[in-house]
Amino acid sequence: MGAVKTKRMPRAVREQQMLDAAVQTFGQRGYMAASMDDIAELAGVSKPLVYLYLNSKDDLFTACIRREAKALTAAVRAGVHPELPADRRLWEGLLAFFTHTARHPDGWSVLHLQARTHGEAFAAEVTAMRTEIVTFVTQLIADAAREAHRDPDLPDKEVAGLAEALVGAAESLATWANATPGVTARQAAATLMNFAWAGLGGLMAGRAWSPPPA
Amino acid sequence: MGAVKTKRMPRAVREQQMLDAAVQTFGQRGYMAASMDDIAELAGVSKPLVYLYLNSKDDLFTACIRREAKALTAAVRAGVHPELPADRRLWEGLLAFFTHTARHPDGWSVLHLQARTHGEAFAAEVTAMRTEIVTFVTQLIADAAREAHRDPDLPDKEVAGLAEALVGAAESLATWANATPGVTARQAAATLMNFAWAGLGGLMAGRAWSPPPA
Repeated sequence: MGAVKTKRMPRAVREQQMLDAAVQTFGQRGYMAASMDDIAELAGVSKPLVYLYLNSKDDLFTACIRREAKALTAAVRAGVHPELPADRRLWEGLLAFFTHTARHPDGWSVLHLQARTHGEAFAAEVTAMRTEIVTFVTQLIADAAREAHRDPDLPDKEVAGLAEALVGAAESLATWANATPGVTARQAAATLMNFAWAGLGGLMAGRAWSPPPA
Repeated sequence: MGAVKTKRMPRAVREQQMLDAAVQTFGQRGYMAASMDDIAELAGVSKPLVYLYLNSKDDLFTACIRREAKALTAAVRAGVHPELPADRRLWEGLLAFFTHTARHPDGWSVLHLQARTHGEAFAAEVTAMRTEIVTFVTQLIADAAREAHRDPDLPDKEVAGLAEALVGAAESLATWANATPGVTARQAAATLMNFAWAGLGGLMAGRAWSPPPA
């Protein structure tokens, strides 16, 4: 019977179910406390099948990191429409980022907390994703500067530093927003957009950036 | 001879030398690759003496995290003079932070990379320091809002989010600055001050915040 059941569902589908269960378990219990028994039970499969498909706890965790990293970068890229003006592109990117991290809190916990806390190999997986996002944001800021005909141009090093600052701010705020009851993705995105676009000086002077209607 | 040498130097002084050697070794080679042999040799003491004073590699690493965390928070607090206006207080705080992380790159690596990558117990030590810094920055932003007689006041949750964003930006930028040749502490602090105070919108419009003369 078990063999028949296994055959009825394509391997790719069953593997995604295992990854769903693994992300949830790693995200909520932490890498150390999560057991393969828990994950198999949550996925509704036998433990040997998890090992057969994903090989080991480490390989399963790595597969989780890769899938969640890919989903997050895809969500941010999909959120940004190139024809919009610079401030709107930044807003759309931030909104896409916070919406994704709010909807997938376990995935974000895997990427931002778990993957970085349990050894250099896992941390390196996240660093690769982060580099991709920093490159994307660097381009976004450089485009904004070009649109604004900044004279003199912002130096490349300044743009790179601003991108690092913005990504670090977004990571920190997403973790805080997910841990703070009552903070929506839209509020977190608006807080960071105001900070990033208007600056604290602008906020203190009452010059906030206004998001477009939802 | 060895025993006489050991007696001539007070325990507290010798312990600091061991911690200096340990921070350097952990910061440059990473927690896993660092050996107690390396650390003892760099400190100019025997390995048994390191174990006698600091008990184990884990305890030594924890002592490093605590010392570096204390030094960093003390440096930031000492940099901020309460009588200055809000933008100057923020500038002084950022300059103190980036000056300290640039002067102590191994200490920053221990705090920001190594301690967070090698297990939950070490990560919790860093979280305690981070909470202290976020609280300090939250107060700084709340004071700035009060000084500016913001009406309506910035809501507490907004201030808390802004502090999280600013601290995340600073962590990210310090790591980038230490890894990027030719970026000084003053430049990194100026980049973040411009980002945090003038915002990208201000920068694009040519409204930068100008640091006071060095």
